[in-house]
Amino acid sequence: MGKLTTGTFATYVEELTIRTSERYQIQCITQDVERIVRESGIDDGLVLVNPMHITASCYVNDLEYGLHQDIMQWLEKIAPCHGIDGNEGEEYHHHRTGEDNGDAHLKRQLLGQQVTMPVQHGRLHLGTWEQIHYAEFDGQRNKRILIKVVGVMKS
Amino acid sequence: MGKLTTGTFATYVEELTIRTSERYQIQCITQDVERIVRESGIDDGLVLVNPMHITASCYVNDLEYGLHQDIMQWLEKIAPCHGIDGNEGEEYHHHRTGEDNGDAHLKRQLLGQQVTMPVQHGRLHLGTWEQIHYAEFDGQRNKRILIKVVGVMKS
Amino acid sequence: MGKLTTGTFATYVEELTIRTSERYQIQCITQDVERIVRESGIDDGLVLVNPMHITASCYVNDLEYGLHQDIMQWLEKIAPCHGIDGNEGEEYHHHRTGEDNGDAHLKRQLLGQQVTMPVQHGRLHLGTWEQIHYAEFDGQRNKRILIKVVGVMKS
Repeated sequence: MGKLTTGTFATYVEELTIRTSERYQIQCITQDVERIVRESGIDDGLVLVNPMHITASCYVNDLEYGLHQDIMQWLEKIAPCHGIDGNEGEEYHHHRTGEDNGDAHLKRQLLGQQVTMPVQHGRLHLGTWEQIHYAEFDGQRNKRILIKVVGVMKS
Repeated sequence: MGKLTTGTFATYVEELTIRTSERYQIQCITQDVERIVRESGIDDGLVLVNPMHITASCYVNDLEYGLHQDIMQWLEKIAPCHGIDGNEGEEYHHHRTGEDNGDAHLKRQLLGQQVTMPVQHGRLHLGTWEQIHYAEFDGQRNKRILIKVVGVMKS
Repeated sequence: MGKLTTGTFATYVEELTIRTSERYQIQCITQDVERIVRESGIDDGLVLVNPMHITASCYVNDLEYGLHQDIMQWLEKIAPCHGIDGNEGEEYHHHRTGEDNGDAHLKRQLLGQQVTMPVQHGRLHLGTWEQIHYAEFDGQRNKRILIKVVGVMKS
């Protein structure tokens, strides 16, 4: 049997700012999301975690640095920074606009844009190994992550 | 600090119909989603944008035509229309059913199925460059996109 | 014109347990999700379907066994079990921890982690061919899938 919760509906939104030291970098943000869920006063519902930029991903996976390295190497193999075929001189069409981050737009689609996670008892309702991450593919400047909680207020 | 909103909860759903002129085509649908959010009378919450077909994607990325071209070329490289290895004669198992769109089912998983975006002040709450797109991989016929808004009604 | 629904807000959550007989296996879970939606008593809203494990995917696509086979072969080509380049001896960094499932963490990102589907009239609101699947990449033990329904209670 499942668990039913009713009460006053509310939404809560906060924009989190992150500036990575590297152009390509993965950072765990579970604690930040947990803090915002707690501050929201929402007891039960969902939380959307969405980068407000199009060259970054919010994803859930293992907080293990070897895996972070594997993910970045894998993304570079599948969506290389030097054009679709990975050869210099065969650049992305997107670079004709003066941009140099064509790969970042593809990497973010491959890893996934966003996650919506469950909230219960005023906390993230996670499996043992689920950790929320922010993956940046065009960093070294301020980026925003939108965190939006929706659900039943604490009574 | 974040922003809390309470009020009467509501949902609003509309199915949007799209028919692309090409088999493979990317189309920006931000304006359509924005219109439906406005018509919903919902002031604050979330909007789900989900293709009701399994050979298409709704995704958020740059509205830049060079990038659209890069995305399609990249998807064709990673999930080729002529079978997993890209060779004619090594077709998808799916084609034994008489279908010819095996690649489309994979491309939609690679690019991503759906997005859930935040709504605030009765509008999409987007980052500067976030645009909602529909990517079709088996078009030239009517397809439906489900747009569902959930949240607090305008008071 | 869309359809507006208002009423008492509720959430309902249930954890579904699955144990696949194979390490890599795809299983359709539409009926399970449908049952939980029905039991929730929620008439209209959204349902989140999220694996609580980081080596599995919940995704929506065709219930066609040829396609299931194509998906697994494609995932193995793009994220091989023998390291990023598919060569034995060039293992994932993640394996230095003693794990042997580096590929599973990548396959789940490629196929997609989770889906949020619409609920209407107390049922899943699906397109003709949309079926919810669970894809396991490190199975043969109990795994949990979180199913969370949010929306308007039946009046």
